[in-house]
Amino acid sequence: MGKYVYLFKEGSAEMRNLLGGKGANLCEMYNLGMPVPQGFSVSTEACTRYYQDGQLIAPDIIDQIYTALHETEKIVGKTFGDNKNPFLVSVRSGARVSMPGMMDTILNLGLNDVAVEGLAKLTNNPRFAYDSYRRFIQMFSDVVMEVEKSNFEAILTAKKDEKNVKQDTDLDANDLKAIVASYKAKYKEIKKEEFPQDPKVQLIEAVKAVFRSWDNPRANTYRRLNNIPYEWGTAVNVQQMVFGNMGEDSGTGVAFSRNPATGENVLYGEYLFNAQGEDVVAGIRTPKPISELKKENSALYDEFFRIAKTLEAHYRDMQDMEFTIEKGKLFMLQTRNGKRTAQAALKVAIDLVKEGVLNEKEALLKVEPKQLDSLLHPQFDPEALKNAPVITTGLNASPGAATGHIVFTAEKASQFVKEKKWPVVLVREETSPEDIEGMFIAKGVLTARGGMTSHAAVVARGMGTCCVAGASEIHVNTEGNYFILNGKRYNEGDWISLDGSTGRVYGEQIKTIDATVSGDFATLMAWADKYRALKIRTNADNPRDARVAYKFGAEGIGLCRTEHMFFDADRIPAVREMIISNTLEQRQVALAKIMPMQKKDFIGLYEEMHGFPVTIRYLDPPLHEFLPTAKEDIENLAKTMGITYEELSKTVEYLHETNPMLGHRGVRLLVTYPEIAVMQTTAVIEAAIDVNKRGGSVIPEIMIPIICDSKEFKYVKDIVVKTADEIIKAAGVKLTYSVGTMIEIPRAALLADEIAKEAEFFSFGTNDLTQMTFGFSRDDAGKFLGDYYSRKIFESDPFAHVDTKGVGKLMQMAVQLGKSTRPDIKLGICGEHGGDPASVEFCHNIGLSYVSCSPFRVPLARLAAAHANIKNPR
Amino acid sequence: MGKYVYLFKEGSAEMRNLLGGKGANLCEMYNLGMPVPQGFSVSTEACTRYYQDGQLIAPDIIDQIYTALHETEKIVGKTFGDNKNPFLVSVRSGARVSMPGMMDTILNLGLNDVAVEGLAKLTNNPRFAYDSYRRFIQMFSDVVMEVEKSNFEAILTAKKDEKNVKQDTDLDANDLKAIVASYKAKYKEIKKEEFPQDPKVQLIEAVKAVFRSWDNPRANTYRRLNNIPYEWGTAVNVQQMVFGNMGEDSGTGVAFSRNPATGENVLYGEYLFNAQGEDVVAGIRTPKPISELKKENSALYDEFFRIAKTLEAHYRDMQDMEFTIEKGKLFMLQTRNGKRTAQAALKVAIDLVKEGVLNEKEALLKVEPKQLDSLLHPQFDPEALKNAPVITTGLNASPGAATGHIVFTAEKASQFVKEKKWPVVLVREETSPEDIEGMFIAKGVLTARGGMTSHAAVVARGMGTCCVAGASEIHVNTEGNYFILNGKRYNEGDWISLDGSTGRVYGEQIKTIDATVSGDFATLMAWADKYRALKIRTNADNPRDARVAYKFGAEGIGLCRTEHMFFDADRIPAVREMIISNTLEQRQVALAKIMPMQKKDFIGLYEEMHGFPVTIRYLDPPLHEFLPTAKEDIENLAKTMGITYEELSKTVEYLHETNPMLGHRGVRLLVTYPEIAVMQTTAVIEAAIDVNKRGGSVIPEIMIPIICDSKEFKYVKDIVVKTADEIIKAAGVKLTYSVGTMIEIPRAALLADEIAKEAEFFSFGTNDLTQMTFGFSRDDAGKFLGDYYSRKIFESDPFAHVDTKGVGKLMQMAVQLGKSTRPDIKLGICGEHGGDPASVEFCHNIGLSYVSCSPFRVPLARLAAAHANIKNPR
Repeated sequence: MGKYVYLFKEGSAEMRNLLGGKGANLCEMYNLGMPVPQGFSVSTEACTRYYQDGQLIAPDIIDQIYTALHETEKIVGKTFGDNKNPFLVSVRSGARVSMPGMMDTILNLGLNDVAVEGLAKLTNNPRFAYDSYRRFIQMFSDVVMEVEKSNFEAILTAKKDEKNVKQDTDLDANDLKAIVASYKAKYKEIKKEEFPQDPKVQLIEAVKAVFRSWDNPRANTYRRLNNIPYEWGTAVNVQQMVFGNMGEDSGTGVAFSRNPATGENVLYGEYLFNAQGEDVVAGIRTPKPISELKKENSALYDEFFRIAKTLEAHYRDMQDMEFTIEKGKLFMLQTRNGKRTAQAALKVAIDLVKEGVLNEKEALLKVEPKQLDSLLHPQFDPEALKNAPVITTGLNASPGAATGHIVFTAEKASQFVKEKKWPVVLVREETSPEDIEGMFIAKGVLTARGGMTSHAAVVARGMGTCCVAGASEIHVNTEGNYFILNGKRYNEGDWISLDGSTGRVYGEQIKTIDATVSGDFATLMAWADKYRALKIRTNADNPRDARVAYKFGAEGIGLCRTEHMFFDADRIPAVREMIISNTLEQRQVALAKIMPMQKKDFIGLYEEMHGFPVTIRYLDPPLHEFLPTAKEDIENLAKTMGITYEELSKTVEYLHETNPMLGHRGVRLLVTYPEIAVMQTTAVIEAAIDVNKRGGSVIPEIMIPIICDSKEFKYVKDIVVKTADEIIKAAGVKLTYSVGTMIEIPRAALLADEIAKEAEFFSFGTNDLTQMTFGFSRDDAGKFLGDYYSRKIFESDPFAHVDTKGVGKLMQMAVQLGKSTRPDIKLGICGEHGGDPASVEFCHNIGLSYVSCSPFRVPLARLAAAHANIKNPR
Repeated sequence: MGKYVYLFKEGSAEMRNLLGGKGANLCEMYNLGMPVPQGFSVSTEACTRYYQDGQLIAPDIIDQIYTALHETEKIVGKTFGDNKNPFLVSVRSGARVSMPGMMDTILNLGLNDVAVEGLAKLTNNPRFAYDSYRRFIQMFSDVVMEVEKSNFEAILTAKKDEKNVKQDTDLDANDLKAIVASYKAKYKEIKKEEFPQDPKVQLIEAVKAVFRSWDNPRANTYRRLNNIPYEWGTAVNVQQMVFGNMGEDSGTGVAFSRNPATGENVLYGEYLFNAQGEDVVAGIRTPKPISELKKENSALYDEFFRIAKTLEAHYRDMQDMEFTIEKGKLFMLQTRNGKRTAQAALKVAIDLVKEGVLNEKEALLKVEPKQLDSLLHPQFDPEALKNAPVITTGLNASPGAATGHIVFTAEKASQFVKEKKWPVVLVREETSPEDIEGMFIAKGVLTARGGMTSHAAVVARGMGTCCVAGASEIHVNTEGNYFILNGKRYNEGDWISLDGSTGRVYGEQIKTIDATVSGDFATLMAWADKYRALKIRTNADNPRDARVAYKFGAEGIGLCRTEHMFFDADRIPAVREMIISNTLEQRQVALAKIMPMQKKDFIGLYEEMHGFPVTIRYLDPPLHEFLPTAKEDIENLAKTMGITYEELSKTVEYLHETNPMLGHRGVRLLVTYPEIAVMQTTAVIEAAIDVNKRGGSVIPEIMIPIICDSKEFKYVKDIVVKTADEIIKAAGVKLTYSVGTMIEIPRAALLADEIAKEAEFFSFGTNDLTQMTFGFSRDDAGKFLGDYYSRKIFESDPFAHVDTKGVGKLMQMAVQLGKSTRPDIKLGICGEHGGDPASVEFCHNIGLSYVSCSPFRVPLARLAAAHANIKNPR
């Protein structure tokens, strides 16, 4: 039997995990001597027990709650349910990290038919007392007893109609008394029992309701999106009510210690006199800017300003505070580190360093890496967004905001742009390599299928194009040039808007604001570079992406997917010729056509990287990906290639695979067709010699994918080395290069010691490694992962965040085993996880040398790497 | 610089790994005082160095060879290349285990133009000398210098024609002298250099040739089929020549110490006077049975008989010996444990126990588990097989021999049988569940695609039907009722024969011999059961298979694949109804139809197992496997189900998966549709209660497949337990059951400690675990595994033998982790590896409780388990 309930005087800010953020900060403010209404917190561990015990609060916890309640009553000198001076409380959720609006709150708890009379007498304000009681009945019924709010709203409206008034405030005490009676009657009608009169019953039921709300669908979704473990649970804060609605000397407000939009160092917020918190939120009355308070009541303003600055200095961060004024006395109800825009985050962090409050490391930790995205991509104008309904939601596959005319094909995208119907958004069932040109022209890409690592998502992130993927509610009819969503038809040319940062889709044109990168950005990035240990590389397959990434600070290419170069219209014929070759000689003829093109690609990449290392991965996908599957396409291709339809069909059929992800791909192709490795090596090495002759200092890194065995690696490495050394010798130059492998098959991780004897570097391909380790493919998992989230089996998408328990265990094994046979082995990651802050931190912690991510994620990765090294220095 | 060459007096039988089997046994015989021609062995380590050094013999090894040669010369008192009394040697390969006929041999080495004269004078037999020289030139040129044998045979034939004689023996010394001259001229013409005259050069080149032959294609294939590591290498034995062809007082022969076909305790073999070993093999002259020797020369016979019995007692096993008689003197050239039929193996082992030579454990080790297969299945009549050409080869997927008329569909199989066109062999591109009836009717199954764990292979093994799978050279045209193989057409009704134990296919009718199980079999099995620690279970999905397995000694069912029960014609409609249901209610209606059928299945299985545990795996394959894909079939099904073609097509399309192996299957289906788990649990538990009421003692084990996470397992387990406990409670009975999981996803092995907290048993699904760990699917790997063998990256099929390094490492982790949180966890294996002796040994060594295999493999597994426990007792 542990301790589950803590009086505010027993807690502190350090006890956030136990008391939740709100509870811990209330304790801290109390201990700082600030005016905080008395109360106590029921801990997150009580929440965990509640669920363990089958959604029951155990008797020992109930006892502790009652004891704490009694202690609090003694401090404030009021008694629960007292008919003269009743003690009223608020009951609020408070998780370890803030989940605004996700869970439940109950105010004015403790009122009943007796206490309301006492409150009326005590305050000499029956109207206030009955108004509070009515609000409490409605809120308690709704939140705790699951009686729909609308039942009560109808009664309120009827009374206002009867009295012919518009505002709630126009109703008098008697009206409200009558309303209370009607409310209670309605409650009894629905629940078949009286509205609970015992305040202690009310309290326990309210605590349960808060615990229950931890598990409501919106809380679950929020947690998943924000990577918050379900196990954490929520605390419950029970706190003496103070009233901002006791007259014109009372009020309530919220304020930030600095401007959360810009970061400017001014008090920012709003307040209302004679109001409770919900009035500010409800938007019926317009609150006043906090600066007005200075004029209306400068003493109060000064007191609040002083508290705000004290809290900011104490927490060493911008604060977001709630306060209430009861009959001229200020009470602090909450403080927490304020949420802010990316721009504000930068400015606040840098200002706090200038003000001597923070050092550079601390300042870096104040900026969330994910926030940087919004500085690099266009965003919607918040005003324009306000009233736009979300028509569907997909995966936030590539950040930014896009608005444009719907087109369904890459050709139409070009045509629209020529006709000045600009901008466009490309909508596809899913994209394929032929869509790349269209994706480049479009402002945004929307797909009905595919996950965070689908073609659309990967390519869009590389380009920095906004993308919402896997919006499974839309049904695309490409031939018909329309899609259907919830019964509505959206045609070519209609406006659509995508938010790639949230996955939201809007069925209209919404104004966007361009990205703005301030000087603060450069300052912060310079600090990040100073404190990080990980190198940051980029995944880039063409000079354009490489250039962007270099500009964003990439220190090399960690992954060049050579097959992406194969899809260009001018080279795909040669690739297909290679595939349908029946003999080595035929294949070599085709490869000879491809070689100069690859060489040119590599020259471009080397040049853009200015001497930084460039890792080139050899052919990865199964060959059938380069061939058409539709009858018509096969016919056309056969004609072009001068062979019969039957011949080509036979090849296509032969290459068909039951499970392409587990098929003839990567190194397996090179084992079967070593001549492909010879061709790619020739291109890599000749390109490097070419650039170095013109003053470059290229050190190519050749990477063999899909390895599962050291002999398999050695077989291909021997071919690579023989080819490379012959070319270097013939050219009479010196050139350093290395040959390494991806670790993306579980067996490669398990046998990394043997493989490291041959491989000079490892790069973790966490996309494939995740697929193989979990035994599901990213293409197919979409169908059931939703069930896994809703049943709380998984809490986050393993393709978005490295699964540290399973996949991460294999990675750690591979690191240890690899170092055991090659202590200086270079270790990197080039899966999509390389751009995920949590995964970057994991990579730092297990001792990788670098992470590689898409160009637009490079700044994010630089900051995440700094965070990781500050938290856990190498 | 180590020791690479050993004189016979320096070695012993224990040095087999270093000296090879032949070399070690020569040393042993020498040390036993037996008449062995002098010589030495070049070790297997020298072979390894030869390959490491780039196919060169290092100077230090050459020095050691020359030193050993010199020592031997001193012992025998002859000199290499001497013109009076030349020393001649044989050079033979000798690997750690015998690989008969796979590698090269050179006889009469040391002859040259000078030595031949010496030999002629010494033996006073010029004909013998020149005949030996001619044979040597031909053999050396062919084996060592790669000059085709046919070049020399043409010269020999021309001479015989010229002299108008038929036999080689009809040529005289002068003829042979002329032939030698022509041979040398031919050699020079082809090689552009003289035939090597220096015996030391001859020797080193011959040693190289033997080393080289370790890597020839037929040796590589033999090793892969017999699971012999390439790294072992071969030794080379250099031994003084003795001549069986020096006249009628000379001869040569081979003999077994017991009959290798029956095991009968009589000397068995044959010999020829005035002949060398190759004459016996060539079949030009008919050798005499060894019993004749007793009449022809009883002293010699007695000496040999004594030696044979001494060797048998010394090696405590039946011996296979080669001998030569030179001018009346007996020489032993080789002894080794003799290969024998399964029947003989049993008899010899049991007789040796009766004779007090072996104890039971030792006798068990003398029988290879794999041999038992041939006792349980029909075999070809060896005589009938002798001249049948192999038309193609596939995988030896299910043992036994079958001959029959070709049919291409299950319907045709039934029709043929009705029409008395019996027996039939079913030929398919690959089989699917609809073919099961046809597979049951057919004597054998031949498929063009699919591996050792393909549908055809798994089902055929279960039934005990002979199967050759993945014979990729055949092109099946099912509509046309024929297949094409190497340009030849085989029609329906044509005769074909399959050897499921070797994978060979014959294009004609071949007589088969039925299986015969003797009393020796029961004796050996009883011994095996006495000494094994592993329990042996079976994989069985129906009472028929369960009955067979029980008869073969299965101690329970380790895997019942419930989905196999779904394909029956009378229940597939209900299964399809469940799949196309749109609501939970519809699905429950369909499931309610399936439940009683499943219950009936389980009752049958429980009854056949007589109280042994029965492990029932819940639904495993993706749902689309139950739906048709061809347009016509969809149309028909839609009609039957009373829905539109479009509706059904949409469902089929929706269920389509890119990588079905990594798709929505196993536990993932149960997470999405918990009602399936409820249905299956109801059937499992109600069936058990039913059987137990009638006096049974069923303990069902419920197994959830494809688990990757403990929460995932717990989610389904909770549903199972709730359902089961409610049924048990309602029935008012007591029933014990357990809920466990398969370990077949790498992540499950990595997190086995967490999973074991919930799961009461683990069963390793090594088929899937191998696929995921290697990252290739058994369906697709067929295309490239051949390249992996030919390039020596893999030496055995990981789907046939557990990959102990990678997959095995995961298994070991899972065992350790599982035991760490549940020390008494039951651990089994139910992948196809459960019937592979090497894998059974591995399972014993890592501490599993049982292995489960197809019914016909149960005896094999019992013996393999005994071997494992005798070698490494628990």
